[in-house]
Amino acid sequence: MRAGEALRRIGEEKPLVHHLTNYVTANLVANTTLSVGALPVMAHSREEVEEMVGLASALVVNIGTLDPAFVEAVLLAGKRANERGIPVVLDPVGVGATSLRTRTAERLLSELTIAAICGNAGEIATLAGLTAEVRGVESIGGDARRAASEAACSLGVTVAATGETDYVSDGGTTWAVSNGHPLMGQVVGTGCASTAVAGCFAAVGGGWAETVSHALAYFGRAGEVASGKADGPGTFEPRFLDALARLAADPDGLENALQVEEVSAA
Amino acid sequence: MRAGEALRRIGEEKPLVHHLTNYVTANLVANTTLSVGALPVMAHSREEVEEMVGLASALVVNIGTLDPAFVEAVLLAGKRANERGIPVVLDPVGVGATSLRTRTAERLLSELTIAAICGNAGEIATLAGLTAEVRGVESIGGDARRAASEAACSLGVTVAATGETDYVSDGGTTWAVSNGHPLMGQVVGTGCASTAVAGCFAAVGGGWAETVSHALAYFGRAGEVASGKADGPGTFEPRFLDALARLAADPDGLENALQVEEVSAA
Amino acid sequence: MRAGEALRRIGEEKPLVHHLTNYVTANLVANTTLSVGALPVMAHSREEVEEMVGLASALVVNIGTLDPAFVEAVLLAGKRANERGIPVVLDPVGVGATSLRTRTAERLLSELTIAAICGNAGEIATLAGLTAEVRGVESIGGDARRAASEAACSLGVTVAATGETDYVSDGGTTWAVSNGHPLMGQVVGTGCASTAVAGCFAAVGGGWAETVSHALAYFGRAGEVASGKADGPGTFEPRFLDALARLAADPDGLENALQVEEVSAA
Repeated sequence: MRAGEALRRIGEEKPLVHHLTNYVTANLVANTTLSVGALPVMAHSREEVEEMVGLASALVVNIGTLDPAFVEAVLLAGKRANERGIPVVLDPVGVGATSLRTRTAERLLSELTIAAICGNAGEIATLAGLTAEVRGVESIGGDARRAASEAACSLGVTVAATGETDYVSDGGTTWAVSNGHPLMGQVVGTGCASTAVAGCFAAVGGGWAETVSHALAYFGRAGEVASGKADGPGTFEPRFLDALARLAADPDGLENALQVEEVSAA
Repeated sequence: MRAGEALRRIGEEKPLVHHLTNYVTANLVANTTLSVGALPVMAHSREEVEEMVGLASALVVNIGTLDPAFVEAVLLAGKRANERGIPVVLDPVGVGATSLRTRTAERLLSELTIAAICGNAGEIATLAGLTAEVRGVESIGGDARRAASEAACSLGVTVAATGETDYVSDGGTTWAVSNGHPLMGQVVGTGCASTAVAGCFAAVGGGWAETVSHALAYFGRAGEVASGKADGPGTFEPRFLDALARLAADPDGLENALQVEEVSAA
Repeated sequence: MRAGEALRRIGEEKPLVHHLTNYVTANLVANTTLSVGALPVMAHSREEVEEMVGLASALVVNIGTLDPAFVEAVLLAGKRANERGIPVVLDPVGVGATSLRTRTAERLLSELTIAAICGNAGEIATLAGLTAEVRGVESIGGDARRAASEAACSLGVTVAATGETDYVSDGGTTWAVSNGHPLMGQVVGTGCASTAVAGCFAAVGGGWAETVSHALAYFGRAGEVASGKADGPGTFEPRFLDALARLAADPDGLENALQVEEVSAA
């Protein structure tokens, strides 16, 4: 599904998007979801995650500040989401940095049906079994296109590897998304927020690679719009939420500004 | 207590307001409290909640991201607050969405003396035993005036049901508060922040319905002031904190801009 | 190490700074770290803290929303940081307000080697065994210079007591830092963020008192720069992050604006 249709449907349906996420960027993730036009809810207690995800149209899992209780909640919510047939979108934050993160991502991929994975190049390379340098939760270099393509092939899932150019692959076809602005890398949580947007799009359009590509392109376009009014990373963030909301409220013409193209796999 | 007197007393006494709240909007809640002129503290460990609330002038409970350990902390802190005679203000986030939330709110209302409840129309309708649609933590429609009045009657507590117009009732009299701006609904946590302001006012003025009405009117007025300088939900939030701080620092003339009126109960 | 050299080295090395911190100001702390030029990571699970701190160049501990599981994680991470010889910087938030906080700080100081402590005057006075009023997590008055000097002497650690003037002492020499702006006290988490900057500086320059003084002076200078473009505490925060990033990216000439001077101990 392309960005214009996705945003129109989100605006009409106001889907509830359930986030199991980290406490560092939870506020940005929630505000991003609301700016896109969806309704965010954060609920992590194992006493209610299944019931809450029962009301939702998508589940977004972000392991940025994971611990065993969190992982247990993800498994409960993810299984319920799978039963209901709603998409589960995973942001494997810091995979490759610690064994807990790598093992957790592997376990989630083994026990749950994931619709799409969105991570930085290093995280995706780790999931693809390629060598990568992940420094804390930041990726240092790496071949994002190859990582996305190989991870999608080996995992059988739509995979996005974000970076200066984002690559989204379903294993067969790979899209390159060129929208974005360097200031996005200077704000904590833009990666988490881009996965949240992919989750909002998936809530109305599923986890197909084209849908995820358009989610990331819209996200990057908002960054371009915001950058013109920002004096640095601090003033960029509120301007960015403004741009997400403005583009979502009036998506006509948006697609002309999106730079999404099919590229050869690797 | 009216807004002008409440803000002057907050500025003089700098009351400590103890928040047991969610991790999504904790930062906005803390900054709101500070902008109003009070001192926020967040402390949730059962090893210290009783001691911390022993220093506070009000306790604000927000169940947005509750779990069993959180509920246990609320009960400990709430009982100590009751012993000390300081007001406890409750934001029953998501009541009606899951049984954990509904049961928890009922338990808090049964085991603690609550001075005031502030929630959206769907949450308050649920507490009043009326039918309501609560989607995650967002309320969809409903008759806020009736919900506030009936919940106040049946629970014997001051109740505010917030929305385009806020209704505050003590069971006998109901006030309508018309201040506010649509952008407030596009920022995550404005509901939590409005309850925090009610907690600040309660710290110096108790949980009476007039005091809560004036807290919400001041809050809405800050939204009106901020809206003139905002380009969307992102830039609204910092402007809103500016407006809260400016109105609190110079409350003369504020009450002329407040739209609070007594209305018939339902 | 002086501010110019520290910022240049941070920009070159992009050190990973591991934060064990509170959920109220975690986002500001992470964005501050990124704006300074370092890479933040938050990871608190005892299953991974040791491995994560094994990748880091400094550990910053902030007990703002502590509980027993958090303290256990701090001890595990701190011991590993000590083994590796990387600096541990401690913000003893709320020490003096509750016995849990006071006992925890004492335990951390007894079981770990701390490179530097940064707190407000009341917290530092408590650690020095002086009488102090700590209201929640806010300090009310007190002699910051004496507190810093006596705490540094008795604990054998670099100690910063922040306030209108910051005092940093190694027990022998005490520095006074006069940079800053009153709006910094109207934003939640500026204390936490200043400790984060001290942690970033320590990652490349160790925990010496001169290094910590320069971290706080740079931090205060950013506040001065930001204040000119702010209309209140809300708009100050994004402007402040902009200023931190701008000064870090171009530190030439910065030191001329820093007000750091050696003063007699007390």
